[in-house]
Amino acid sequence: LTVSSTQEAFRIEYDTFGELKVPSDKYYGAQTVRSTMNFKIGGVSERMPVQVIRAFGILKRAAAEVNQDYGLDPKIANAIVKAANEVAEGKLNDHFPLVVWQTGSGTQTNMNVNEVISNRAIEIMGGKLGSKTPVHPNDHVNKSQSSNDTFPTAMHIAAAQEVNEVLLPGLKKLQNALEAKSKEFSQIIKIGRTHTQDAVPLTLGQEFSGYVQQIKYGVARIESTMPRVYQLAAGGTAVGTGLNTRIGFAEKVAAKVAELTGLPFVTAPNKFEALAAHDALVELSGAMNTVACSLMKIANDIRFLGSGPRSGLGELILPENEPGSSIMPGKVNPTQCEAVTMVAAQVMGNHVAVTVGGSNGHFELNVFKPMMIKNVLNSARLLGDVCVSFTDNCVVGIQANTDRINKLMSESLMLVTALNPHIGYDKAAKIAKTAHKEGTTLKEAALKLGFLTSDQFDQWVKPKDMLGPQ
Amino acid sequence: LTVSSTQEAFRIEYDTFGELKVPSDKYYGAQTVRSTMNFKIGGVSERMPVQVIRAFGILKRAAAEVNQDYGLDPKIANAIVKAANEVAEGKLNDHFPLVVWQTGSGTQTNMNVNEVISNRAIEIMGGKLGSKTPVHPNDHVNKSQSSNDTFPTAMHIAAAQEVNEVLLPGLKKLQNALEAKSKEFSQIIKIGRTHTQDAVPLTLGQEFSGYVQQIKYGVARIESTMPRVYQLAAGGTAVGTGLNTRIGFAEKVAAKVAELTGLPFVTAPNKFEALAAHDALVELSGAMNTVACSLMKIANDIRFLGSGPRSGLGELILPENEPGSSIMPGKVNPTQCEAVTMVAAQVMGNHVAVTVGGSNGHFELNVFKPMMIKNVLNSARLLGDVCVSFTDNCVVGIQANTDRINKLMSESLMLVTALNPHIGYDKAAKIAKTAHKEGTTLKEAALKLGFLTSDQFDQWVKPKDMLGPQ
Amino acid sequence: LTVSSTQEAFRIEYDTFGELKVPSDKYYGAQTVRSTMNFKIGGVSERMPVQVIRAFGILKRAAAEVNQDYGLDPKIANAIVKAANEVAEGKLNDHFPLVVWQTGSGTQTNMNVNEVISNRAIEIMGGKLGSKTPVHPNDHVNKSQSSNDTFPTAMHIAAAQEVNEVLLPGLKKLQNALEAKSKEFSQIIKIGRTHTQDAVPLTLGQEFSGYVQQIKYGVARIESTMPRVYQLAAGGTAVGTGLNTRIGFAEKVAAKVAELTGLPFVTAPNKFEALAAHDALVELSGAMNTVACSLMKIANDIRFLGSGPRSGLGELILPENEPGSSIMPGKVNPTQCEAVTMVAAQVMGNHVAVTVGGSNGHFELNVFKPMMIKNVLNSARLLGDVCVSFTDNCVVGIQANTDRINKLMSESLMLVTALNPHIGYDKAAKIAKTAHKEGTTLKEAALKLGFLTSDQFDQWVKPKDMLGPQ
Amino acid sequence: LTVSSTQEAFRIEYDTFGELKVPSDKYYGAQTVRSTMNFKIGGVSERMPVQVIRAFGILKRAAAEVNQDYGLDPKIANAIVKAANEVAEGKLNDHFPLVVWQTGSGTQTNMNVNEVISNRAIEIMGGKLGSKTPVHPNDHVNKSQSSNDTFPTAMHIAAAQEVNEVLLPGLKKLQNALEAKSKEFSQIIKIGRTHTQDAVPLTLGQEFSGYVQQIKYGVARIESTMPRVYQLAAGGTAVGTGLNTRIGFAEKVAAKVAELTGLPFVTAPNKFEALAAHDALVELSGAMNTVACSLMKIANDIRFLGSGPRSGLGELILPENEPGSSIMPGKVNPTQCEAVTMVAAQVMGNHVAVTVGGSNGHFELNVFKPMMIKNVLNSARLLGDVCVSFTDNCVVGIQANTDRINKLMSESLMLVTALNPHIGYDKAAKIAKTAHKEGTTLKEAALKLGFLTSDQFDQWVKPKDMLGPQ
Repeated sequence: LTVSSTQEAFRIEYDTFGELKVPSDKYYGAQTVRSTMNFKIGGVSERMPVQVIRAFGILKRAAAEVNQDYGLDPKIANAIVKAANEVAEGKLNDHFPLVVWQTGSGTQTNMNVNEVISNRAIEIMGGKLGSKTPVHPNDHVNKSQSSNDTFPTAMHIAAAQEVNEVLLPGLKKLQNALEAKSKEFSQIIKIGRTHTQDAVPLTLGQEFSGYVQQIKYGVARIESTMPRVYQLAAGGTAVGTGLNTRIGFAEKVAAKVAELTGLPFVTAPNKFEALAAHDALVELSGAMNTVACSLMKIANDIRFLGSGPRSGLGELILPENEPGSSIMPGKVNPTQCEAVTMVAAQVMGNHVAVTVGGSNGHFELNVFKPMMIKNVLNSARLLGDVCVSFTDNCVVGIQANTDRINKLMSESLMLVTALNPHIGYDKAAKIAKTAHKEGTTLKEAALKLGFLTSDQFDQWVKPKDMLGPQ
Repeated sequence: LTVSSTQEAFRIEYDTFGELKVPSDKYYGAQTVRSTMNFKIGGVSERMPVQVIRAFGILKRAAAEVNQDYGLDPKIANAIVKAANEVAEGKLNDHFPLVVWQTGSGTQTNMNVNEVISNRAIEIMGGKLGSKTPVHPNDHVNKSQSSNDTFPTAMHIAAAQEVNEVLLPGLKKLQNALEAKSKEFSQIIKIGRTHTQDAVPLTLGQEFSGYVQQIKYGVARIESTMPRVYQLAAGGTAVGTGLNTRIGFAEKVAAKVAELTGLPFVTAPNKFEALAAHDALVELSGAMNTVACSLMKIANDIRFLGSGPRSGLGELILPENEPGSSIMPGKVNPTQCEAVTMVAAQVMGNHVAVTVGGSNGHFELNVFKPMMIKNVLNSARLLGDVCVSFTDNCVVGIQANTDRINKLMSESLMLVTALNPHIGYDKAAKIAKTAHKEGTTLKEAALKLGFLTSDQFDQWVKPKDMLGPQ
Repeated sequence: LTVSSTQEAFRIEYDTFGELKVPSDKYYGAQTVRSTMNFKIGGVSERMPVQVIRAFGILKRAAAEVNQDYGLDPKIANAIVKAANEVAEGKLNDHFPLVVWQTGSGTQTNMNVNEVISNRAIEIMGGKLGSKTPVHPNDHVNKSQSSNDTFPTAMHIAAAQEVNEVLLPGLKKLQNALEAKSKEFSQIIKIGRTHTQDAVPLTLGQEFSGYVQQIKYGVARIESTMPRVYQLAAGGTAVGTGLNTRIGFAEKVAAKVAELTGLPFVTAPNKFEALAAHDALVELSGAMNTVACSLMKIANDIRFLGSGPRSGLGELILPENEPGSSIMPGKVNPTQCEAVTMVAAQVMGNHVAVTVGGSNGHFELNVFKPMMIKNVLNSARLLGDVCVSFTDNCVVGIQANTDRINKLMSESLMLVTALNPHIGYDKAAKIAKTAHKEGTTLKEAALKLGFLTSDQFDQWVKPKDMLGPQ
Repeated sequence: LTVSSTQEAFRIEYDTFGELKVPSDKYYGAQTVRSTMNFKIGGVSERMPVQVIRAFGILKRAAAEVNQDYGLDPKIANAIVKAANEVAEGKLNDHFPLVVWQTGSGTQTNMNVNEVISNRAIEIMGGKLGSKTPVHPNDHVNKSQSSNDTFPTAMHIAAAQEVNEVLLPGLKKLQNALEAKSKEFSQIIKIGRTHTQDAVPLTLGQEFSGYVQQIKYGVARIESTMPRVYQLAAGGTAVGTGLNTRIGFAEKVAAKVAELTGLPFVTAPNKFEALAAHDALVELSGAMNTVACSLMKIANDIRFLGSGPRSGLGELILPENEPGSSIMPGKVNPTQCEAVTMVAAQVMGNHVAVTVGGSNGHFELNVFKPMMIKNVLNSARLLGDVCVSFTDNCVVGIQANTDRINKLMSESLMLVTALNPHIGYDKAAKIAKTAHKEGTTLKEAALKLGFLTSDQFDQWVKPKDMLGPQ
């Protein structure tokens, strides 16, 4: 919090604990300042994610509109709606200095939002910042609400938006790119590898089709968790009973949020669960953890298949995006794969943090809320972004090194399998062993041993016939 | 492996590496013995879970029946079916000595199964153990199969059965018991607690309704992952192409397994994914991880609410199941809650093991198969069992300590909230502060301060009116 | 990257891939810009931790000084030293825009550092930014170095500094504060709790002494991992062999870094391990994970012991730092405990991310470097900061609620244990059971049953005599 | 618990809850039977690890000997010592049917031990099983003890023994085998790989020296945690105060356990920490987690370097231990590597379970004890066993495929680096690019371009000169 040295740079605001200096150019008030004093933990990079702040803007706007139905002065409601909108649009991000490591209910961020919106609304209505009139942070902006139900509501709005705007589009983009490659490579027959060792052949397109399926299921996994993320706690207030709200408030707020976001939010059927447990976020995080496993597998495969250029597997040619080395031309570091696998590891770690937090709620409130949503949003954002980066900077540019692929496949001892029906297992085995020992091709060994003719070999050993059931 | 000292206790079997002594009273063969020699890791308690063995029995029976359609000698098929059935029924469990820590494809367990079934089938047909005739472990029992597709098939069968036979019934039983308690306690008003601190009231029934919702969603979470667990890899053989199977084999085997188990198994639409990735098990494990979080929360609440008998919260009276202490009568240790929370921690750990294994597949095969299924089955079994134990030995016997509950609630300073509309926030606050400072009740403080009459207090401060929106 | 619309705002720099526009007011060059284009992942909050950048400043200065011994032009060396110093002091933080999610070797950040230092050194020497002369980013700033050894060196420097400057001081401060409380509370006898249930007494000082021991051991745990963190990879260059360095370079650089930091850095005895594995960071993270467990336990205890004010355990009075509620005076939310437990959960999650990254190195290089150091630094910073916050804003202000403590202790049925030697277990049990059933004190029950006199009870039931072995 | 159908197969024992039937051929008593009824969780494979039972035997013997010093009848003490010895030697393992998932303090296992030892001691002294005379399970076998201090004592004894008898010997054996290979391979120059891509050369011995260092440090890591594992809780009794013990008991028991085990056990300096927290086991688990990362890395390298035989990297020839496939000769599956990496994943998962349990202790007692020790012992055993298996069945038999290694190295474009000083970077780059494009060797490209002679090439491009600093 940088402030100028002149006395005019501050105004005085107060809360029930007393007066505090607030920077004049900020909309927040005393409770926000007090939190910055009590929670000097981690610094600027540990601030509450901006997605939560923007979700709060949406919620506060929705609440103001619903409160107007229940009697809130329309002029006040309008001013709140305008101010809340600015928060939702990210225009006031500089006014939210609090870190994640605060009270576990997110109360201080809720108050930060209330203070910023009330002061901005006061300004809109021509009042004096910090006067709490005509728009009071608690009585008006927080009307019919409690931190205990607004913060989890903002968590769900933020998570749902990040999933829909970043994660799912990223996954689908990657799925499409992999699918295109799978089709492009559908005729390229290559050696299969099991236990990392040579095995029977498949097409490169088939290999990529496995990746497509993983990502496609990843999308399904994320989506199958969303019904519970779309349930909002708003209306539960302090302990889930809805004390100090009005009948219908919960449903109307959820409907308004759904309208504002275009997402199918509904009010949570049980508010006690919605405040005291965040299983829905553990579940979503679990789905992202599964996606992380898929991405780790795919990125590992691609970098190993693209290893070389001379001494690796070398079946894929990966796009070269940056200087790999000032010494060696041709060295392509699979840097996009590395970003993918690092993100995957991070998501697995985030998931454990979310799990530990999710398991430690007590009685009517889980107080790991800011930590949980930070990790969920981080996972969703990183996964979504890295899918886009990986697609644009790697997947779409992958080329098959068909010479290398053909060479490895045609040299493979595994193709001997095709001879079993014709000359019997024992002779086939002898061919393979001879080839392995002498370092020759199967055909060379077969001809040397005199078990079949060159034509017979060519007719019987057809990788194309090994790509599916008969 | 205990063997007697006489020479007759062994027979000689062989594999492609040579001869090995096999205990005469065992159906397994050389490859099984070889594995016991090469993998002395962890001992008896680390054996392949019996659920996997039984699932293999089902699969091998199904495969034999389908193979008969494709030309397998009916006499051989029949003998295999009978022997496989005995494996499926757990009658031959003593013949599966291999540990989890073997080849990562589970090849050795697949061969153990093939050897046991072939020898038992040989015996049924009057042949000589170890002769591989008339029933060959590879050519007949493993026909149209590979370890690479049979092991993941057995994994999915075993996981699906454990989920349906142990996990889901356990969760539903607990859900029902909690629901009954929620109804039983629906009229008991108690103090709420947020941040572990006193808060506004709710009913004990409402509190329990949150637990009900958690478990109900837990069931939904598990169920939402099952469509992908019901997909079977069988028919993919070595690398997913289905080499050496027949068109239709995959679909028919899945249908047969579905028939034998009564579960909706289908053939996996993409066999490459089904061999190379086990995302479906990571996903299922993730759902169990969420359930573990729910159970940790519920069990923690119940033991804290039942803490005492004198110096804890004391709102619940938990059943006394065993001597708590040889010294103090009345000490009830919440031992069932402790078993629940220990299981929850284990499931969280198992989930990380499954995640690490699931992320490390390479190319056409994931080789963490035995480890992954061990952990998935362990989580399912422990969660299911502990739900039953917790329900029977704790939940159904929980009583509300209504005297204590009433005392805590009526003493609560939080009830002052109800006076705000009548005497204003400032006077209400003064009452609460006075009561807190002097250690009196709100009513005593209110009367002392002269802000209202005894009748007014009784009329306005009604916890019953604080249990929902107006 | 915000840039103005005028053409003058850019200069052209190039790398081996071609030309790129670089903002005129930034010292970085083409490779940095290229990375911002290829890795749009996570945004500003995911930037490489500034501690890594500062550590690079120290390393580059040390390398320049040692390179001068091996023939680097002193004028160039001096300019590099000055520029590197500014990086080390954090003066050029705005010139490091790259995110963690880049190449897994951290190459791009190494190049970012090389570019910034060379351009700043060029400026110092009166040259033209982007000209690479007289100070070349590779040939001079990166001389005798590779990303593969400099990045892990910077990781270790950054980790060691964060441990010594933030983590250990924070832990020791907390240890001292807890120790002071343990002494302050040494005469306060209270009820013990096992299984969360009433047990035999101990002093509040004894209870806190357990916390002191945990933190004391935490310090020892961190310190016991540091010998391996103090080992630097510098001198290993690309694969650990030290190709393109000079004999003695590794040792001299480590000595110089030790001198500059005041920490006992040495050159790693085996550079192959130092590049390909980051076990030392996994180990450090493991020690922090243990500390997280300790903090979770302590903070949980303190918030439960401080729960109330009326309906909790209420043995501790925690400092009130901010408005807990606009409704209820006396409600103190244990917000510092909540920050502590959220940090603990995060550290456990970070640890899993570090573990997954640490386990997935291949051949001569681990490529999870940026992700690993990000998490290690995050854990160290959050733990250190939260210890200070917890100490200052909670621990030092904790008061014992002696009235409550005495009441709970004197009412405890557990004290009946003291009567066993005098009246026998059976009569003692009868007293306890009667008291429990009738809700009276032990003394009341004892007198009612006529087993002893009031004086005898007072003489025999002395909690003070139950605090240690006889 | 299988019992025969005849009435004679049972005897009646009782605890404070009433009578129970106990199988006549078992030494345990009523509390053990009661636990089997209340905790039907997981079945036989989830029994308390036998190492804990044996550790209890040691502890109970030590306690009896020390109790004799404090006045316990020598005849009773002698009988207890004999019976306890049988437990310590594993002779009575069948008498311990309880599962891990019981009370979180391990009370029921402590009582199981007390019951078995007292009944066996009664038998030795000619008494009647179940009579509790002349040897009473609580008054004599458990004298001066509580479950709360004996169970953690047994945990530390069991962990320390498993570490010393299985884990450390296994690690050292592997370290030695790797060291021998490192020496054997010291002259074999091979291509290095960074980012999984071709890089500058090193020797195969250097590559293995990195593995040696990892395991060597693994030993150091484990050992550095042991001082805190060697601290015993015995003497703390119920809450850590040592109520009902005698001054000196704690120290004497620790000394006796040290004498019996040959390990440097001491009494824990703070018993409150020793009962309420198990940070020492979280720490040990963290060290094992680091070792798991090391092993994952090494086993992954070895299986990738040994991949092939035709289409992989093929630099190592791994021992062939079992039939890899019934089809393809020459296919060696790296099954030992797979066991290693599966164990590594399991240890990482176990570590999270231990972490979650370790963080959730409350007040004077952590009640995740059985779960924690189960996982710690499992990790130690699996790691130790798999190191031995990996060493014996893989590492000692690894051969370098020198032809392949030479071929890959000599074809590598990276060697062009050596020409920079002689012909300049630009010409060197041209050579490399030409070779890469045309698929020729560097030498062929160099000669074709006419930049140097064949002799010059041979003189300048010497991999041997690229293995260290100059």
